[in-house]
Amino acid sequence: MTESQSRRIAISVEYDGTGYRGWQEQRHDVRSVQAVVQNAISKIADEPIHLICAGRTDSGVHASSQVCHFDTHAIRESYNWVMGTNTELPKDVSLCWAHDVAKEFHARFLATSRQYVYLIRCSSFRSALLTNTTTFTSKKLDPHRMAEAGAHLLGSHNFNGYRSVQCQAKNPCRTLMGLAVHVDDEFIAVHVEANSFLQNMVRNIVGVLMAIGSGEKSTLWARDVLESKDRTQGGVTAPPQGLYFLGPTYPDTINLPQTVRIPTIIKRILKTNPVQ
Amino acid sequence: MTESQSRRIAISVEYDGTGYRGWQEQRHDVRSVQAVVQNAISKIADEPIHLICAGRTDSGVHASSQVCHFDTHAIRESYNWVMGTNTELPKDVSLCWAHDVAKEFHARFLATSRQYVYLIRCSSFRSALLTNTTTFTSKKLDPHRMAEAGAHLLGSHNFNGYRSVQCQAKNPCRTLMGLAVHVDDEFIAVHVEANSFLQNMVRNIVGVLMAIGSGEKSTLWARDVLESKDRTQGGVTAPPQGLYFLGPTYPDTINLPQTVRIPTIIKRILKTNPVQ
Repeated sequence: MTESQSRRIAISVEYDGTGYRGWQEQRHDVRSVQAVVQNAISKIADEPIHLICAGRTDSGVHASSQVCHFDTHAIRESYNWVMGTNTELPKDVSLCWAHDVAKEFHARFLATSRQYVYLIRCSSFRSALLTNTTTFTSKKLDPHRMAEAGAHLLGSHNFNGYRSVQCQAKNPCRTLMGLAVHVDDEFIAVHVEANSFLQNMVRNIVGVLMAIGSGEKSTLWARDVLESKDRTQGGVTAPPQGLYFLGPTYPDTINLPQTVRIPTIIKRILKTNPVQ
Repeated sequence: MTESQSRRIAISVEYDGTGYRGWQEQRHDVRSVQAVVQNAISKIADEPIHLICAGRTDSGVHASSQVCHFDTHAIRESYNWVMGTNTELPKDVSLCWAHDVAKEFHARFLATSRQYVYLIRCSSFRSALLTNTTTFTSKKLDPHRMAEAGAHLLGSHNFNGYRSVQCQAKNPCRTLMGLAVHVDDEFIAVHVEANSFLQNMVRNIVGVLMAIGSGEKSTLWARDVLESKDRTQGGVTAPPQGLYFLGPTYPDTINLPQTVRIPTIIKRILKTNPVQ
């Protein structure tokens, strides 16, 4: 087959990140979601394929809709890509949909924004059923203080104070389009949207907001960390198990199935009005 | 210490049953929830303790509130039983509360009813984030047919047709006080309450209701299986991962914290009105 015969396919991948060292393919002995999905699709395609994703996630972080694209010479119905690949995947990774796209589609470069939710459970005891899917704290967090502090981060800023020292992005400027705090029973969810995110950016923001919610720090501290542009001024990086990548948004002209999906456990809480 | 100094403690245990061969302690090389909890509490009590539970669960079945009691000479605050034991437990098992009770309290014999929920997800693709906590089917199920069929099982009956052939209960008669079918998005939840349940009874009921919901069997088949009193007339036992023991109910005269708890993932769906 010639290169001219290849086509581009977009997919949405859901995963429980607990058993993985993040999305990105690494050394052969490190378990990554990318390698596992590439391996499964390559079997269905009957040729090696390489995935480009919308947003890399860290070790232990979940995704309800990681949109990717790949090129292949194989001709399959959408239904067969999904069914076939899901048969080859381990049970903590699944394909939601597959869709033919134009050769110009690019899962990463064309995404206009990404959404994440960070889910915290405040209680006097930890929950066995939520171990891998929420962050537990026995501290009482004030969601109003968290929302007030978070508002200081909205807009376009140098987020150096909120990114991992290992982050390799050349430009530390990002535009935070939304930050909403929702409360339901003992749960607090922090829902963020940005054009894109730096490494550990959501977890570092949530780490700062949790310290503010517990009263350890003032609400202005979120702004101080931002203005310092210095990671060492920031707080503890919140643990990965509470973090979900909900998916990217693309321009309306790109015809795809749902690219942002809310995990079932979070649907109820995100339906509540954001805390003011 | 003398026996007269011992006291009785009631506890509520939550667990993700995925990694366990059920509640009941078995041979030393078989991982059971009971053995894991006994081991953890024994460390806090500084003496061996033995648990009596409200309702044994099968391999892979979850519980949001398995109420148990044990006797001990140790004197601890409720808070210290919970915090200490949770530190010793693996992360897929947790204690929600501990409470001093009279010596006459018995977690099993005093329970007047037990509640279970069975959670089914109907979709064209399996969900990685719900692998261990729901039963997936690609079949379209009609919840109205399931509710209509389930109504035939209400009341006091010989449930021989719905129990495992391994079930060791002498009396196969049980009183099913409630069976409600709830629907939310792609989820169907079957919520049942009975004085007590026979082995595999909920999973066998759900297996029959799923075959009726998919149209493979008529709605009267649920009644036919009941009247046959013959397990070989029944359907496939529904898989364990969709099943949650919500907890037992005790007479009002017994003062305990919440003994029936709804898992977070199911709260939203059980708030919907039952299907007629």
